[in-house]
Amino acid sequence: MSAERSIAIFSPGLLGGSLAKTVQQRMPGVEIRVWARRGEAVEEVKQVLPGIVAGTDLAEIIRGASLAVLCMPIQHMPGIARQLAACDLADDLIVTDVGSVKGGVVGELEAIFAPSKAAFLGSHPMAGSQRTGLAHARGDLFHQAACILTPTAATQPEHVARLRTFWLKLGCRIQEMTPEAHDRCVARISHLPHSMAVLTTLAALGKDASVLDSSAGGFRDTTRVASGDPDMWAGILMQNRTEVMAALQDASSVMRELLEMLQSMDEEALRRFLVQAKTLRDLLPAV
Amino acid sequence: MSAERSIAIFSPGLLGGSLAKTVQQRMPGVEIRVWARRGEAVEEVKQVLPGIVAGTDLAEIIRGASLAVLCMPIQHMPGIARQLAACDLADDLIVTDVGSVKGGVVGELEAIFAPSKAAFLGSHPMAGSQRTGLAHARGDLFHQAACILTPTAATQPEHVARLRTFWLKLGCRIQEMTPEAHDRCVARISHLPHSMAVLTTLAALGKDASVLDSSAGGFRDTTRVASGDPDMWAGILMQNRTEVMAALQDASSVMRELLEMLQSMDEEALRRFLVQAKTLRDLLPAV
Repeated sequence: MSAERSIAIFSPGLLGGSLAKTVQQRMPGVEIRVWARRGEAVEEVKQVLPGIVAGTDLAEIIRGASLAVLCMPIQHMPGIARQLAACDLADDLIVTDVGSVKGGVVGELEAIFAPSKAAFLGSHPMAGSQRTGLAHARGDLFHQAACILTPTAATQPEHVARLRTFWLKLGCRIQEMTPEAHDRCVARISHLPHSMAVLTTLAALGKDASVLDSSAGGFRDTTRVASGDPDMWAGILMQNRTEVMAALQDASSVMRELLEMLQSMDEEALRRFLVQAKTLRDLLPAV
Repeated sequence: MSAERSIAIFSPGLLGGSLAKTVQQRMPGVEIRVWARRGEAVEEVKQVLPGIVAGTDLAEIIRGASLAVLCMPIQHMPGIARQLAACDLADDLIVTDVGSVKGGVVGELEAIFAPSKAAFLGSHPMAGSQRTGLAHARGDLFHQAACILTPTAATQPEHVARLRTFWLKLGCRIQEMTPEAHDRCVARISHLPHSMAVLTTLAALGKDASVLDSSAGGFRDTTRVASGDPDMWAGILMQNRTEVMAALQDASSVMRELLEMLQSMDEEALRRFLVQAKTLRDLLPAV
């Protein structure tokens, strides 16, 4: 298990930028190299993260790196991965990502790097914000966040060990799941809540947005993530559509139950329903 | 428009307790009297709010008060109101409440006080927490909160003016609506988000609560209010059932739209749907 010597970050948005800041703070002595597609983004990196190597040339940024982290939207990962796999790579390079869906992506990226010197292993740090972009990057974004690693039958145990060490150093708690179990899990705990926040916003404000003048903390918190990046979330929900649809169908069933209780004025059943939800929600420790 | 001289608070839970604390801080010289049903609750009031008159005798607490605020669950308000209307009341007494539903309640309470010296006028400060009880009472709970007053054709303008002044002094922003408009508004901006948080919790965790280990801020915020008091919320949702059902039906329609986009893999329509929600949610100023 070698310590990382040089970390290459591809696409400096909220996650890539926060990753760079956190590595700077928590892994002194480790080189950080950042790739961005556009020259203006490179200039922004140089301003926000002084002292970091940044450029638009993939081959130059990946050269010598022991760890590469793909932080672009999932749909763009395979294209970048193919270009990287054709570059001059270090013998010990691990490539990982921070994508929110793993099912199809991990197999595709694994296959792309199989003929190269590098190994691919998926990561998903459960951290983010409705605010996107490098300007909102934070050095504490990963603090206490769950980070799910998704090894496959082809993954070497020492690569899992190295990647665990990396995310642990950034402050994460580590979990391991297959890509399929990951997608089932995040559909419930992340993609469903996001979808429900969107539906709540549309049903609350769609007919008359002036009710916002009366809003309080309940509306604010329940709908916060509906302000997230529509492009990114359209990609996530579509890529994980089977599991997201299953979760939404379950939400639709409990919604029918609730409507029936209200229709039949069964206050006792409603109270039990609310107790059941409270009991489950109270499992989450208070911050 | 006389300034308040003595404020009687009935039921010292989160709202009643916060009201007492805020009046102490912001209206020095105004007497505060607190009624609780149980003797143990009176003892708790005396510990948490030293120097405040507290007791279990309604007639004693209401004596001389210029303003009475009913803070018990809505379903218990008419019973208490009938007892209060039979007490010796000051000539200038205004009775108000902090209940979340107004439709039926305001008419009933107005009628109860009509033969007495007191006038009833409904209030709904949009403030609360998933944490209930006097122990969580806060002197800043009403700061910047919307407070909806619900006058009727029978309400005297000078009573509206006095009640506005009271809530303004506590830090609220004032709105005025008919009881019916109030119930339509809060069904959308409060009761729907609460219901959706409950549904999200049940659909996310109902089959396997272990996904909680991977949760992040999105799940935490989207479901926070599902930890609220089930008794209180069963009462609210049932009392406002017609408007809540209409809002849930709208949520059910947009959920069907979302499921169809996922089913047909229409990513462009999904993106537009998410943009629409983000545009609405972004109308809420950041805190």
